Amino acid sequence: MPHEFTCARRVEFADTDTAGVAHFSAFFRYMEEAEHAFYRSLGSVAYEWSPDGVVGMPRVSARCEYLEPLRYGDEFEVCLTVREKTSKAIGYDVVFRKRDGDAAKEVASGAMKVVYATRSHGSQEWTAAPFPPELAEQIEVAR
Amino acid sequence: MPHEFTCARRVEFADTDTAGVAHFSAFFRYMEEAEHAFYRSLGSVAYEWSPDGVVGMPRVSARCEYLEPLRYGDEFEVCLTVREKTSKAIGYDVVFRKRDGDAAKEVASGAMKVVYATRSHGSQEWTAAPFPPELAEQIEVAR
Amino acid sequence: MPHEFTCARRVEFADTDTAGVAHFSAFFRYMEEAEHAFYRSLGSVAYEWSPDGVVGMPRVSARCEYLEPLRYGDEFEVCLTVREKTSKAIGYDVVFRKRDGDAAKEVASGAMKVVYATRSHGSQEWTAAPFPPELAEQIEVAR
Amino acid sequence: MPHEFTCARRVEFADTDTAGVAHFSAFFRYMEEAEHAFYRSLGSVAYEWSPDGVVGMPRVSARCEYLEPLRYGDEFEVCLTVREKTSKAIGYDVVFRKRDGDAAKEVASGAMKVVYATRSHGSQEWTAAPFPPELAEQIEVAR
Repeated sequence: MPHEFTCARRVEFADTDTAGVAHFSAFFRYMEEAEHAFYRSLGSVAYEWSPDGVVGMPRVSARCEYLEPLRYGDEFEVCLTVREKTSKAIGYDVVFRKRDGDAAKEVASGAMKVVYATRSHGSQEWTAAPFPPELAEQIEVAR
Repeated sequence: MPHEFTCARRVEFADTDTAGVAHFSAFFRYMEEAEHAFYRSLGSVAYEWSPDGVVGMPRVSARCEYLEPLRYGDEFEVCLTVREKTSKAIGYDVVFRKRDGDAAKEVASGAMKVVYATRSHGSQEWTAAPFPPELAEQIEVAR
Repeated sequence: MPHEFTCARRVEFADTDTAGVAHFSAFFRYMEEAEHAFYRSLGSVAYEWSPDGVVGMPRVSARCEYLEPLRYGDEFEVCLTVREKTSKAIGYDVVFRKRDGDAAKEVASGAMKVVYATRSHGSQEWTAAPFPPELAEQIEVAR
Repeated sequence: MPHEFTCARRVEFADTDTAGVAHFSAFFRYMEEAEHAFYRSLGSVAYEWSPDGVVGMPRVSARCEYLEPLRYGDEFEVCLTVREKTSKAIGYDVVFRKRDGDAAKEVASGAMKVVYATRSHGSQEWTAAPFPPELAEQIEVAR
């Protein structure tokens, strides 16, 4: 059962700032992109509109510690590990590793916690809801 | 009747890129921010959710020509001029001027065309619609 | 001596996502904008290019907890409180409050830690450095 | 000789806005990502820092026309065609096609013009420069 997911990314030009590095807020977008790719890898989606309403995964918390910068063009991997799972929430640890040939060096690490939630059409309010069983069954907490 | 609107902005750190300038895509966000402030200045809004549905202003086209860079911290003004108005669409010219004390120097210019549109709850499709008369009456094409 | 700084902001259209709320990564940009405004309020800057080199404030860590969403057009304030200060690093707590008339309700809270750093022209490496005394003297840790 | 380049992309969550579509400014980032991938495909780079200075490709102009929206998760391709080439500048047309199984439908089209430029360390000014011959020789204007 999946409890870990890794995807590869490159620092795009628009991700950088005038200090010459990937902007610190970009790491949060990278985390979310990896998480959404994780759900796609399970045949699911992290956000879906249907005629019946909308399901999504609002963030409860997010954090990142920065060890070394990433720069334009750098290739790196984002490794997501499931650390916590309740009926309505999932917590991940995230490690960013910069690739250098075959080697990969940790440059940042973080975490993110999300809830499963639904929204009716005609409402702006998101309500936490249990993960669908077929999704919950596929996800395992890493030991 | 309003046909011109100017607002002031500063280049934020996250707007910049590793070339040391405001990223070219930021100018399109600046244009939209100025446009939305224009509608607020008229007591209106460029996007609104209500229990009956959503109104918004999808972009039909946008362009920008870059004369000189803006850099982190630069103060500039965005001047919007209404150039075209039909029952469902509005076209603006946009000039960006970097402030330097009392002087202001043009650094970029562009244009944007938008339509007024509505979307029903329970649908993903936006449909062009006539501007509400009270809004249309307030906006004038510049000579 | 300053140990707290508050600035006002509005959720711009480009800050939102298809879930109908300000994207979680936007809060990190809001934090940084408030921090940079804090330094401007002290007559200083958080990033500066000069013929001698570059000074900046790379982030060491950042986190945010989300209590309630912000939506397009919402007015909110970002309140920065200095919680930690060493010769080379500063840590802030950050509270986001949504304004509703005269009232303001906490919708998110976070923290950020940064170091003062310099970079020589001709190098890509940032090196932590002591805060300039005139800046360090102005900043106080909140009790 | 290359005069066309296509790359595939997916609409990420952070690319969308509260109208439920990819924000119009995202198309400009997509254009640039495709352009930079084009240069990588030629064994070159669109931006490079070296101890001797920096080379890059500042944008002179950019535009986009929007025919149909892209939404979260949509897969699309960005097709870049070289339309103009001088010693210091290149102009591209860009077409965005949304993929639907084997089919692909045009949803937006645009254009971008860039110059080749260099910057010395210790200067903030970019100066247009001739494309290096080995790069210029590889790029052909489409008929």
